[in-house]
Amino acid sequence: MSKFWSPIVSTLKPYVPGEQPRIANLVKLNTNESPYGPSEQALEAIRAAASADLRLYPDPVALGLREAIAARYGVSAGEVFVGNGSDEVLAHAFAALLKHDEPLLYPDISYSFYPTYAGLFGIEAIEVPLNAAFRIDIADYRRASGAIILPNPNAPTGIGLPLAEIERLVAEHPDQPVVIDEAYIDFGGESAAALVPKFDNLLVVQTFSKSRALAGLRVGFAIGQRVLIEALERVKDSFNSYPLGRAAQAGATAAIKDERWFETTRGKIIATRARLRSELERRGFEVLPSQANFVFARHSGHEGQALAAKLRERAVIVRHFAKPRISDFLRITIGTDEECARLVAALDEIL
Amino acid sequence: MSKFWSPIVSTLKPYVPGEQPRIANLVKLNTNESPYGPSEQALEAIRAAASADLRLYPDPVALGLREAIAARYGVSAGEVFVGNGSDEVLAHAFAALLKHDEPLLYPDISYSFYPTYAGLFGIEAIEVPLNAAFRIDIADYRRASGAIILPNPNAPTGIGLPLAEIERLVAEHPDQPVVIDEAYIDFGGESAAALVPKFDNLLVVQTFSKSRALAGLRVGFAIGQRVLIEALERVKDSFNSYPLGRAAQAGATAAIKDERWFETTRGKIIATRARLRSELERRGFEVLPSQANFVFARHSGHEGQALAAKLRERAVIVRHFAKPRISDFLRITIGTDEECARLVAALDEIL
Repeated sequence: MSKFWSPIVSTLKPYVPGEQPRIANLVKLNTNESPYGPSEQALEAIRAAASADLRLYPDPVALGLREAIAARYGVSAGEVFVGNGSDEVLAHAFAALLKHDEPLLYPDISYSFYPTYAGLFGIEAIEVPLNAAFRIDIADYRRASGAIILPNPNAPTGIGLPLAEIERLVAEHPDQPVVIDEAYIDFGGESAAALVPKFDNLLVVQTFSKSRALAGLRVGFAIGQRVLIEALERVKDSFNSYPLGRAAQAGATAAIKDERWFETTRGKIIATRARLRSELERRGFEVLPSQANFVFARHSGHEGQALAAKLRERAVIVRHFAKPRISDFLRITIGTDEECARLVAALDEIL
Repeated sequence: MSKFWSPIVSTLKPYVPGEQPRIANLVKLNTNESPYGPSEQALEAIRAAASADLRLYPDPVALGLREAIAARYGVSAGEVFVGNGSDEVLAHAFAALLKHDEPLLYPDISYSFYPTYAGLFGIEAIEVPLNAAFRIDIADYRRASGAIILPNPNAPTGIGLPLAEIERLVAEHPDQPVVIDEAYIDFGGESAAALVPKFDNLLVVQTFSKSRALAGLRVGFAIGQRVLIEALERVKDSFNSYPLGRAAQAGATAAIKDERWFETTRGKIIATRARLRSELERRGFEVLPSQANFVFARHSGHEGQALAAKLRERAVIVRHFAKPRISDFLRITIGTDEECARLVAALDEIL
């Protein structure tokens, strides 16, 4: 704390991302990255962008990228907003759409950045508990609120809601913005982007970091009707005119067009997830049903933190959250089959 | 305005960046980009970053880049903060350091994003008029204030303050954060980074967009003592953990190390600036003394907006600000000698 700090600074509770350690021969299953490299077409587009034209500012409205995303989801470019990773898109959504007189609602077990955003923007929030099966029950959101945000599938549980449930939630709150954070939707869920033409209160947020394997590029986006997108644009243009550089725009545009890479890669991850789930269950783990590129699992005989530490000693890194209700669980990213085999072998040593 | 918008959204006055038009054979002198492509070493580093490793998140603290910047300026990596363009760094500085009970001070004629940031973060600000010669007079800042920000050299005037004047300003306000925005410092000014060891209230902000010719990459940075950097880090980690992608970190790290490219290129721009100034003065323009990569000039016989429009008809784009005191001026980016010759030829047709 310092006299030079704006008063809010000392009240912040910054988000702590998963570590990015430099350990040789590491099996890195802690930050839900793709085990497969991105589309070669995306890489070529990034290389091509590394030209003398980098002296020029990028397109501040990223029109080409927004058109490509719009084409993929059957909306117009004006219904697409892009940002520097979905974290920036979410930050702008909190500032632009989620601060109202009534409190914001989100699940108690969810993306741990949400309370941080609420703190930064001075938003009163209520954490709505997951039910005993660690599922979101939309009936629990039938209460006075200014806005709602939830991930689908949820993280770190991996459990998804069917599209019909999302539609019911959005329909039940016609006066509140409802943000569906679909970082993991492509691994088994059904995107609510299809509902955007029907609901003016729905904003869907996605990322290139997971199913497009471009966590290192920093691109995320939102889809919603113009009235919601305009709010995001106004905040963005009051914060940073050029959030996406030329290489990021070019790479993401090529990536969203490469359907073949996308279908092949997510298919592999979904198949590996099924195999890993069986292997874990065979060793006594309870594994929540996942629609994401990770599983959330606990072992009745082993405490989560200790298990994570023992895996780390064997150069296998998974994520553990020291939080109520979920401190027994490990969140394990789906790696390659080989990486998952190394995880299972390490577990066999430990258990 | 919409019931879905957070109340602040309808109060915002978004910044309007210079246009990025697509006109064939355009002479683009409107957004202060470098007329020369960036360091080839930077481009090679970006191409090398376009690998399968893009599936992984970047280093959230960008340590390698911060170490390279620190080495260049004789500070430690802990005294360097990096962001997604200096606009993002400035946004975080406004949130983290410039909001206090007493008003923020900045020049009335200055970077037009400052009032936008103040509006976004709810900061009361006082615009301190430049003197009759369009210069910042630091004596005018001797008044009750919570913080101060000013560009050096100032924009859009291009006029710089000597380092001794900056030091006096910082010394006269030991209880206020003083942010010096040095986007254009490398074209003739002397950086206040040298004063950082001496003053705990000084934050210096720079960009890779101008003197490093990487406007398309989006990297900016700040240098200051730990207490100020920590405030920026706390806000950043409450907003977006990974503001700089892998290609941006790699390219900027290579760029800051390429001193030969840097010295050669800024030397060419400074030389062209002197020639352009002479040509403009010969044609009856008053040209303010510039230490930046642009000149700010007016012609007694021609109104600024009309002149800009006539240049545009000839595929030469410069920037005009329809604002009090400066509406007669044009801000003209220093292009190549050939681009400046085309500007001058177009002026000869018009005048």
